[in-house]
Amino acid sequence: MSLSELVVPKHSIMTPGPVEADPRVLQAMANPIIGQFDPALLNMMDETKELLKYLFKTNNAEAYPVSGTARSGAEAVLNSIIEPGDKVLVPSFGRFGYLLAEMVERSGAEMKLLEQEWGKVYDVETLKKEIKAFNPKVVAIVHGESSTGALQPLEELGKFCRENDVLLVVDCVPTLGGVEFKTDEWFIDAAISGTQKCLAIPTGYSPLTYNDRVGKILEERKKIEKGLDYDAVNPRRIQSNYFDLSQIQEYWGPSRLNHHTEPTTLLYGLREGLRIIKEEGIDNRIKRHTLHGEALVAGLQGAGIKIFNDLDTKMPVVTLIETPEGVDEAKVRATMVNEFGIEIAGGFGPLAGKTIRIGNMGYGCRKDNILGCIAALEATLSYHGAKINRGDGIQAALEYYAKLGDDQPL
Amino acid sequence: MSLSELVVPKHSIMTPGPVEADPRVLQAMANPIIGQFDPALLNMMDETKELLKYLFKTNNAEAYPVSGTARSGAEAVLNSIIEPGDKVLVPSFGRFGYLLAEMVERSGAEMKLLEQEWGKVYDVETLKKEIKAFNPKVVAIVHGESSTGALQPLEELGKFCRENDVLLVVDCVPTLGGVEFKTDEWFIDAAISGTQKCLAIPTGYSPLTYNDRVGKILEERKKIEKGLDYDAVNPRRIQSNYFDLSQIQEYWGPSRLNHHTEPTTLLYGLREGLRIIKEEGIDNRIKRHTLHGEALVAGLQGAGIKIFNDLDTKMPVVTLIETPEGVDEAKVRATMVNEFGIEIAGGFGPLAGKTIRIGNMGYGCRKDNILGCIAALEATLSYHGAKINRGDGIQAALEYYAKLGDDQPL
Repeated sequence: MSLSELVVPKHSIMTPGPVEADPRVLQAMANPIIGQFDPALLNMMDETKELLKYLFKTNNAEAYPVSGTARSGAEAVLNSIIEPGDKVLVPSFGRFGYLLAEMVERSGAEMKLLEQEWGKVYDVETLKKEIKAFNPKVVAIVHGESSTGALQPLEELGKFCRENDVLLVVDCVPTLGGVEFKTDEWFIDAAISGTQKCLAIPTGYSPLTYNDRVGKILEERKKIEKGLDYDAVNPRRIQSNYFDLSQIQEYWGPSRLNHHTEPTTLLYGLREGLRIIKEEGIDNRIKRHTLHGEALVAGLQGAGIKIFNDLDTKMPVVTLIETPEGVDEAKVRATMVNEFGIEIAGGFGPLAGKTIRIGNMGYGCRKDNILGCIAALEATLSYHGAKINRGDGIQAALEYYAKLGDDQPL
Repeated sequence: MSLSELVVPKHSIMTPGPVEADPRVLQAMANPIIGQFDPALLNMMDETKELLKYLFKTNNAEAYPVSGTARSGAEAVLNSIIEPGDKVLVPSFGRFGYLLAEMVERSGAEMKLLEQEWGKVYDVETLKKEIKAFNPKVVAIVHGESSTGALQPLEELGKFCRENDVLLVVDCVPTLGGVEFKTDEWFIDAAISGTQKCLAIPTGYSPLTYNDRVGKILEERKKIEKGLDYDAVNPRRIQSNYFDLSQIQEYWGPSRLNHHTEPTTLLYGLREGLRIIKEEGIDNRIKRHTLHGEALVAGLQGAGIKIFNDLDTKMPVVTLIETPEGVDEAKVRATMVNEFGIEIAGGFGPLAGKTIRIGNMGYGCRKDNILGCIAALEATLSYHGAKINRGDGIQAALEYYAKLGDDQPL
């Protein structure tokens, strides 16, 4: 096998992630490697920590990435705070809720799993009742479910958990940086995200934050690894070494405990991506995502394409459309990418085949991509036999943008 | 806090990792993101698998990276094959041997830890006796110990393990791609490496390979996660979801089980870095590392600098020097980086303060770096009061290179 240099096709990525990285992030990542204890790198880590606090809207002492894909951060938090037999409630409403349940189970918890029809979210009173009845140590829930496009309101749930001394752990992988997320105001004890969605940074990092309530558990369970502290013993030590947040927070703290080797290039990318977010302003960025999400929906509806989501609980950055009667959704996606160079995504689980998922996230959440996607989708669905109001969708989206005026952060 | 764009100093990295990335790798990593099920990406995964087999010198069916830093792969292998109560022998001879022990303990094994003086390796007869006496399911050992520079011979150990139906798991993080490593010929059942050392690729991936003996255990313990297979049950399931190799191998296999999101940019880098290794030729590459390592030792000895390692069990890509009497090694490292822009590393554990570690790995393993490092180190040690044969070291290294002639793969 003789191989040529890497050739990567240029596509417009309108999936719910991974999405287009900001070109400035990719440029930052092309910088040369420096040593893991180079003062310049340590300074970058400190800056990244502060930028993450800005992004998460938190005053927590701890905010840093776990060196793995988005799900690694969730496993790290759950593994670090759950001890065998701990009661954990997981209200699932899609694939990634089930993923939390999987991790909770593997952490040895006594889990209660709630299940909700895919596409719906929970009424907060239901959740309160379940918490009262089960009395868990931890509630683990997804904020935005990218498998369904549904967005779970969290503020009242957070307040209730805090009042009842329950830890609230939230997966905000598809929402952070694109949808309103207030760690402190919503009383969230630990929040976990990824880089490859609204942050517009390549996959490989899982930024997270947690407060002192979580920090106290980590302190109690702390055990430095053998190669660095030979005699350390703690019967309550965290199961995993790689995901042991009590050690990772020291690597990110002043003691610089030599846990893993921080992925230099990803750190360059994260720091630059977060700097760009701060330059845009987090609230401007959220508004940008909201408006483009509305334009997308206006356009799709204008074309007569049926939106799967309940619009009042829809995540602004993920839209599911129903596959029109008699149309093969795999063929739709194939035409979209092969003819128009636009990637959209299929459905998961009970929604597979029945829905198509469209994302508007990060750097790729731009007018040209929104309009291009609507135009291509109108044509593609029509080509595959669906009844479409050809051309009307794109006019509806253009009109939506025109009505916004010029002073919006688009 | 207002932040400027990223500014990264340009240093010559002569540590045992992370080291300079090949510029072609960084360029490949600047390619745009594509979707995780884009045929171009899937093809890249298949190519990477074949290239890894070439690198590991194996015909194993499985060879792929875990999405995390080097230690993540070790934890994934150990966590996936060890069940609570399994007997595991860990012969440690430095910091990273203790790391394996830490992971083995956290996996719930009945562990027997052997300990060896830092800098030494094991006599194979000692290991055979210990295996006979303890009768473990698994032996987990480091090939090259970057904390001491020692290299453990493995071939005879591997043969003995196979004959006695013991699984041999080897950490080859600092050696793979720079030091001879023969997975199949040495009867190694699972081998785990990193990208940031002799492969000259940024940190963030842990390439590994394993044979059917390991594959059989994975098959028995397989449990697909709840979001993808709701009813799957397996009481022997692997503890971690993120590190569940029975699922990750399916993500990398024809079923493309949607486990995590492969880090697109790191994959570009890995595929390009491996392509470059194949272009150079693995045996040429190993020879290049060996010769530059010998030139470094010749130079250091010529300057009258004392080598800590036993030269007959020294890893060719890591050299430890003894800190000269009365010299503060932290000041030596500071002068090296601040005045000469050359990063070298301090010692760990019992060797902290007493030794300085120098690496010659990957793209940075070049004549200019070797000669520059010797020249700078002669001057720096002399400046800090050590008795050095000023100028003699660099002449010795030049003479070493001159004697090699022109037909070497340098």
